[in-house]
Amino acid sequence: MANQSAALTEVFGALADPTRRSIVAALGRGPESVSTLAAPFTMALPSFMKHLRVLERCGVIRSNKIGRVRTCELVPKRLAPAERWMAGQRAIWESRTDRLVHFVEALQPQELPNDTGKL
Amino acid sequence: MANQSAALTEVFGALADPTRRSIVAALGRGPESVSTLAAPFTMALPSFMKHLRVLERCGVIRSNKIGRVRTCELVPKRLAPAERWMAGQRAIWESRTDRLVHFVEALQPQELPNDTGKL
Repeated sequence: MANQSAALTEVFGALADPTRRSIVAALGRGPESVSTLAAPFTMALPSFMKHLRVLERCGVIRSNKIGRVRTCELVPKRLAPAERWMAGQRAIWESRTDRLVHFVEALQPQELPNDTGKL
Repeated sequence: MANQSAALTEVFGALADPTRRSIVAALGRGPESVSTLAAPFTMALPSFMKHLRVLERCGVIRSNKIGRVRTCELVPKRLAPAERWMAGQRAIWESRTDRLVHFVEALQPQELPNDTGKL
């Protein structure tokens, strides 16, 4: 449970940056070399590498060096718990909203507040 | 677009903390006073209030003070773009995986690597 929470903290933290979200989006289309990934960004390569390391540390991407080329790929299953957490929260408040709607619909007219008719 | 990205950065950053995720989860079940929300946590109230402010600043929760009681409530629509972003990424890599599967299925046996038969 603590590990799951720590993993969520890491993944949400990794996604709390526009460069890292762009890297995730780019790698969703397929593996890429670091130089190709870095090309659209104006930042210096060492800064870019720091972002890659944040994503690699929490397992959202992995990389592999062959010769002088380091290639990165996405590990989609590491994003899944974060998406499930968000969907789970939505399910909780949607079921609460549904219960409220049913409650209001079940009220008899005389139970509704006096000013309802003015709406 | 820049605003959307800044909002995603803020929301993902807000969720990158177990206390703040617990607050979101608690408020998903309905509005709560600050003191009720803070009760399960061992941290000092000023530290807890800092977490509430982070959530309030990015609009994920809002609060209202009546007399001496401050009540917080969730603003689910502020979490929706983050969930949509994650679902969007999944759609991209799932469609890529589907294309790869179709490509492999469409290959004639003689086009498959020689060692496939050994699997």
